Amino acid sequence: MDLDFTNITTIGFDADDTLWVNETYFRRAEDEFAGLLEDFETKNTVDQELFKMEMRNLDLYGYGIKGFMLSMIESALELSNQRVSQQTIGRILQIGKDMIAHRLELLDGVEEVLSSLHGKYRLLVLTKGDLLDQERKLEKSGLMDYFHHVEVLSDKKESNYSRLLEHLEIPVEEFLMVGNSLKSDVLPILNIGARAVHVPFHTTWAHEQVDPSEHYNSHLTLGNLRELLKYVNG
Amino acid sequence: MDLDFTNITTIGFDADDTLWVNETYFRRAEDEFAGLLEDFETKNTVDQELFKMEMRNLDLYGYGIKGFMLSMIESALELSNQRVSQQTIGRILQIGKDMIAHRLELLDGVEEVLSSLHGKYRLLVLTKGDLLDQERKLEKSGLMDYFHHVEVLSDKKESNYSRLLEHLEIPVEEFLMVGNSLKSDVLPILNIGARAVHVPFHTTWAHEQVDPSEHYNSHLTLGNLRELLKYVNG
Repeated sequence: MDLDFTNITTIGFDADDTLWVNETYFRRAEDEFAGLLEDFETKNTVDQELFKMEMRNLDLYGYGIKGFMLSMIESALELSNQRVSQQTIGRILQIGKDMIAHRLELLDGVEEVLSSLHGKYRLLVLTKGDLLDQERKLEKSGLMDYFHHVEVLSDKKESNYSRLLEHLEIPVEEFLMVGNSLKSDVLPILNIGARAVHVPFHTTWAHEQVDPSEHYNSHLTLGNLRELLKYVNG
Repeated sequence: MDLDFTNITTIGFDADDTLWVNETYFRRAEDEFAGLLEDFETKNTVDQELFKMEMRNLDLYGYGIKGFMLSMIESALELSNQRVSQQTIGRILQIGKDMIAHRLELLDGVEEVLSSLHGKYRLLVLTKGDLLDQERKLEKSGLMDYFHHVEVLSDKKESNYSRLLEHLEIPVEEFLMVGNSLKSDVLPILNIGARAVHVPFHTTWAHEQVDPSEHYNSHLTLGNLRELLKYVNG
């Protein structure tokens, strides 16, 4: 495991669940959604069917809250055999709107880490999801001034990262990615020859979970973003 | 009116209704939506109320089909006093999914114009709306190779354009924007000191219509994209 980060000139940060809380709000929304459908199905079935619906719609809708809202509505119709009430549909719309408008909660250490790296590295935000929603969160975060560039990607596969580094003229050997998702922030980055640090968040969306049998290069995992300062020149 | 485009090095194209048909599908969807609600309200009222709902939700949802779907559902609940059937809600979801999956229809002259400008100018796509949806349309269009850079913006105000030109290091006096929307593609561009050509599409969304009393600098309007080749070095 290469822990010598002296070559690094550019550090990319994932946003949701790396800089600020996100997944927690989805979990809460799923809990409320299951409560709305408790006359029809168990929470366990509702959770599973909603997840399947999201996966079925992922190619069409992509990531983000609006697609999640549409999948909740479609699931509610399907799970209830079209018997879910109109009031419940209205309530689902409201759950989603509340998620979009939710106040932003920065994760521990974020401000400290960014302010101590600022000026020493080119700092980027590389996030996926809904463009407007991510721009709004960044605005609310008050972190904009720390970043040289913000890119909202439609997905975080190897090709998305390669294209972006090429476009920004960043050599892979100078790039370090920091994020909470092994699947989106770490593995594709290691596969293109750049380096990545994993900072797990306590909750991971099922879609972001990695098959434990998958082989990958070793990488550094941190308990808290603040520990990053021990490895790079903060 | 300055028709001397000899300084121009970079041409930005809007996408929806400039490179390919878009608004037509929204109009068709609105017609079908009004048909679904004909037991409750006249087409005229449905159209007006849906538009108001879209405007009310625009800050939350931004542009694009998913927000349009969510606004149709919310309008259907409101216009029917919560009496719209579950089957109709399901049908609204399907209208939106069909829009997302619709085959792409290039506008007349697009391929010819791009291929004759390619190599002589830096060509950009500057579009707003849903990131995934716009990427997918560009992919389907087969036009990708003509473009040096594609940017999906959350909005097309002066500040969005200024930031982008600065980021791409394009001097305003070298930039020409081409698009169908006076409000989004022409006026903000003229206001930042760059140049713009208007190529109207036969249908314009009410939100993109400009108050005729608004004053603005004169600009060139073309009947067809192909005529652009008479003014730039095609």
